[in-house]
Amino acid sequence: MNIRLGDNQYGKSETHMVRVTKGGPFGSVHEIKDINVSVALSGDFAASHLAGDNSNIVTTDTQKNTIYAFAKDEPIGEIEQFALRLARHFAHDFPTVHRARVSIEEYPWSRVEVGGEPHPHSFIRSGSEKRLAVVTCAGDATWVVAGLSDMVLLKSTGSEFWGYPRDQYTTLPETKDRVLASAVVARWRYSNEKVDWSDAFASTRRVLIEAFAAKHSLALQQTLYVMGEAALTARPEIAEIRLSMQNKHHYVVDLAPFGLDNQNEVFYASDRPYGLIEGTVIRDDDPADAAW
Amino acid sequence: MNIRLGDNQYGKSETHMVRVTKGGPFGSVHEIKDINVSVALSGDFAASHLAGDNSNIVTTDTQKNTIYAFAKDEPIGEIEQFALRLARHFAHDFPTVHRARVSIEEYPWSRVEVGGEPHPHSFIRSGSEKRLAVVTCAGDATWVVAGLSDMVLLKSTGSEFWGYPRDQYTTLPETKDRVLASAVVARWRYSNEKVDWSDAFASTRRVLIEAFAAKHSLALQQTLYVMGEAALTARPEIAEIRLSMQNKHHYVVDLAPFGLDNQNEVFYASDRPYGLIEGTVIRDDDPADAAW
Amino acid sequence: MNIRLGDNQYGKSETHMVRVTKGGPFGSVHEIKDINVSVALSGDFAASHLAGDNSNIVTTDTQKNTIYAFAKDEPIGEIEQFALRLARHFAHDFPTVHRARVSIEEYPWSRVEVGGEPHPHSFIRSGSEKRLAVVTCAGDATWVVAGLSDMVLLKSTGSEFWGYPRDQYTTLPETKDRVLASAVVARWRYSNEKVDWSDAFASTRRVLIEAFAAKHSLALQQTLYVMGEAALTARPEIAEIRLSMQNKHHYVVDLAPFGLDNQNEVFYASDRPYGLIEGTVIRDDDPADAAW
Amino acid sequence: MNIRLGDNQYGKSETHMVRVTKGGPFGSVHEIKDINVSVALSGDFAASHLAGDNSNIVTTDTQKNTIYAFAKDEPIGEIEQFALRLARHFAHDFPTVHRARVSIEEYPWSRVEVGGEPHPHSFIRSGSEKRLAVVTCAGDATWVVAGLSDMVLLKSTGSEFWGYPRDQYTTLPETKDRVLASAVVARWRYSNEKVDWSDAFASTRRVLIEAFAAKHSLALQQTLYVMGEAALTARPEIAEIRLSMQNKHHYVVDLAPFGLDNQNEVFYASDRPYGLIEGTVIRDDDPADAAW
Repeated sequence: MNIRLGDNQYGKSETHMVRVTKGGPFGSVHEIKDINVSVALSGDFAASHLAGDNSNIVTTDTQKNTIYAFAKDEPIGEIEQFALRLARHFAHDFPTVHRARVSIEEYPWSRVEVGGEPHPHSFIRSGSEKRLAVVTCAGDATWVVAGLSDMVLLKSTGSEFWGYPRDQYTTLPETKDRVLASAVVARWRYSNEKVDWSDAFASTRRVLIEAFAAKHSLALQQTLYVMGEAALTARPEIAEIRLSMQNKHHYVVDLAPFGLDNQNEVFYASDRPYGLIEGTVIRDDDPADAAW
Repeated sequence: MNIRLGDNQYGKSETHMVRVTKGGPFGSVHEIKDINVSVALSGDFAASHLAGDNSNIVTTDTQKNTIYAFAKDEPIGEIEQFALRLARHFAHDFPTVHRARVSIEEYPWSRVEVGGEPHPHSFIRSGSEKRLAVVTCAGDATWVVAGLSDMVLLKSTGSEFWGYPRDQYTTLPETKDRVLASAVVARWRYSNEKVDWSDAFASTRRVLIEAFAAKHSLALQQTLYVMGEAALTARPEIAEIRLSMQNKHHYVVDLAPFGLDNQNEVFYASDRPYGLIEGTVIRDDDPADAAW
Repeated sequence: MNIRLGDNQYGKSETHMVRVTKGGPFGSVHEIKDINVSVALSGDFAASHLAGDNSNIVTTDTQKNTIYAFAKDEPIGEIEQFALRLARHFAHDFPTVHRARVSIEEYPWSRVEVGGEPHPHSFIRSGSEKRLAVVTCAGDATWVVAGLSDMVLLKSTGSEFWGYPRDQYTTLPETKDRVLASAVVARWRYSNEKVDWSDAFASTRRVLIEAFAAKHSLALQQTLYVMGEAALTARPEIAEIRLSMQNKHHYVVDLAPFGLDNQNEVFYASDRPYGLIEGTVIRDDDPADAAW
Repeated sequence: MNIRLGDNQYGKSETHMVRVTKGGPFGSVHEIKDINVSVALSGDFAASHLAGDNSNIVTTDTQKNTIYAFAKDEPIGEIEQFALRLARHFAHDFPTVHRARVSIEEYPWSRVEVGGEPHPHSFIRSGSEKRLAVVTCAGDATWVVAGLSDMVLLKSTGSEFWGYPRDQYTTLPETKDRVLASAVVARWRYSNEKVDWSDAFASTRRVLIEAFAAKHSLALQQTLYVMGEAALTARPEIAEIRLSMQNKHHYVVDLAPFGLDNQNEVFYASDRPYGLIEGTVIRDDDPADAAW
């Protein structure tokens, strides 16, 4: 059997850039955007693999420079917009590139207040949660995925888990009351580009959080589905959402040896192992796997 | 020359616990506290080192159990209070323990809102910043250190750096305008225990942030001193503050090759190397090294 | 448009287990195996998502217990074998499970020598490289993927990079001599199970390293392909190999300002950004995407 | 009470550098050294803190350049030697610097073999263990500390733990047979500089490992002391050794519910909490705290 080159892609990953935008009188009021940009290209790159012929290879260093130059050329805008500009450039301006995917993580910052007034150029990192955008361009087709990662939610009650099958390896007691904590990665695909990116992101995030909080949970799977369904219900421009939820186990500490009755008050927060629940909630249309 | 045992200590590190407190009608309104507790004891432990005789060794497993039990026994309160209770227990209830140090990291959570209303038992991790407390008890003496870590601040202007000596290895151009970004660890020692721990923490944190923002900086050293001075000025109960500030370099990207003029707008956020500026601001009294 | 549940899976991730096997006279000669096992199941789980009905949900706690019990029941053997046992159990013994995937990372340990003699029960962690196995069972079909991660290779010469297209954002100078360093993840799919897992792993690893070293490189893409081709040539039981190679940039430090001539001797090892080169080398047969 | 500046220091941290040395015919046989260098200076820096006057501040950028230039100027040699050169430069060539501390981590690499022969310029990262050197210069005084970190050792038997006091919070059962695993940081101070750095490091490391392995342990404290004592006995040039040993708990999994008898064969490897045992073994002379 012959050996051949299969699927392949390459690009520059994690170009970490801060963009300062200056407005107000004399440019004295600043905004900052702190983003981490990764590019992946696929196309006619067989010659590089097979013969070390790089005549089709847009170097990853050039990709990095392009990110910086584009950030200066025009306002970045929302990360979906910046990813669109970059992905279209790579997919459309280089004939040997058949598909470009641009992924952006945005790190959150808040403006500092001094004496109760917003400071014109001082900021503080506000959380470990990241906003995500992934744009894929292939010829005339474009897919926009938005999302978030490192969002950690916890309910101290309102979660049950029972009714599961028992085999010879099952020891878990059923419970009508447990802590439910989850580190959430959510990514959703928009059906088109006529979207208010900022508003859609903020409202989808809020809807996910509210659904997690409000749903009396019988399973993390149920909570996941309710969250996804709420997002699709709230935002008609979302075609599909993929949720990956770590079940961060909080074990009730047995305090009986110390004569204490632990009524779901003191928990050991375990690191490993953890449950991992992944699911898609989607409208009845094409799944568009090329977007992911 | 004889070989002998020198300084030594041991303990359980990183007991990660979530404590749920239930108030309101039928206990339906919950509060959570998410803390990571480390204990270090020193004392008469030579027999364990020299002969494997553990008769003086309060096991680290017992330390862990004690943390859990104390969390149930009484309200945790502020982390300084919980550290005080634990440190006193270990230092006073075991004659062979001469010094106990209890260090607590607290992870921040916010209550979730649903439909604009605070939810009774749902929470979201709010940031990567951690609140710290370190209490040391040795006989009748007690030292309380509070602090924070992983606070990241950035000024997009209002920072200069010039006037430094130049030798044959100096290439850095002087600047009247740069980005100043810093990951801050701040720890401060209280002169006594008559402190409103919550208020003192919140106001010290706010004062540090405001000083960073408001000070037109000629050096990160200057900013550090101003922050420390502001904390001591604002809070008379603070005897000393130690600040460790990473200078997170943001390099102006050279866009001239692309015909673009980068007026401190596009920055490369570098990971390594970084500057590390450490300093103490202290009142004219005893340094109390035993506290740290 | 209706909203519905799409693809989903769940399982217990990162059950970190050490298995001690005792042989020799009186069981005094020990072997250890240090593995991290993750399980993902897909199947008839809609009721859990839609109604919180867990009657089809093999709990992740049960999965964890099963891993431990299987580790005791029979020798673990190579990680491919242990993953096969577990994946078959979950896929075949539970009618509602349609596909089970078991992923194992193995951490390497070496036996300690004392006075030049191998010690019967003392070990030292030997490296950050991990051995991987991923087994997927779906009905009668089974796929076995082996691999490694966190392998870091470096050539201090024997690497060129030139002949790439230049656009307005290209500033990278061409080079006939550079450092080539890469963090490698390699995963390969076996065409069947009649494999000597241990020997196949060791020889594939060796072939990958030798190809990286021996190939005079004109592009990391070329090096990647040569590595994959070498693996498939050496081991006929490998149907396909997927390589993900970080290009860890080492920049020649400009020492001219100090009157020094840096002939590729002093390098700054950069963390971010980095190139990421991914490619598949495959025989002319079915790609078997279900295996990954 | 007056507020004043207390102890302070600053410097460039984590300059990560790879140095290639070319020998053999036509410079075709390469050696590499992969090191991470951190500098901390203390001295007359009050003006910078109090007034932003940087006339005494050797910039951290200059420190970085100096590291690179020194690496080219002369062979690096062992990391103790390179740290000595750098620390003396900063402490002696700048009158305002009163103390310079240079800390180096070295990452291990092995030469790759191709067809059984050592390859002239290809290398593989060999482990996560790091070699350490810390040199402190203050006027005429110099202290050299060597060490290692991230060394993980495990004994699958030959470890007991019993005879400890029991209070109302003690539940731990005594054991005559447990797994003892530890992540070790060891740092030792040489009494002078007439040391074969490479040989002293290698033999100290070996002695530490052998002592861990050979000692039948009644407490990790006892193992720690034996390790330190063995190092001082073997190497008269070592004045003092400080060991920090994480007790990485491996819990015997209870398999009784599955009808299986777990004779210390299947262990759950826990991440947190962990014991932390720290101790010093020292000759009867000055402790030289300034070295650390």
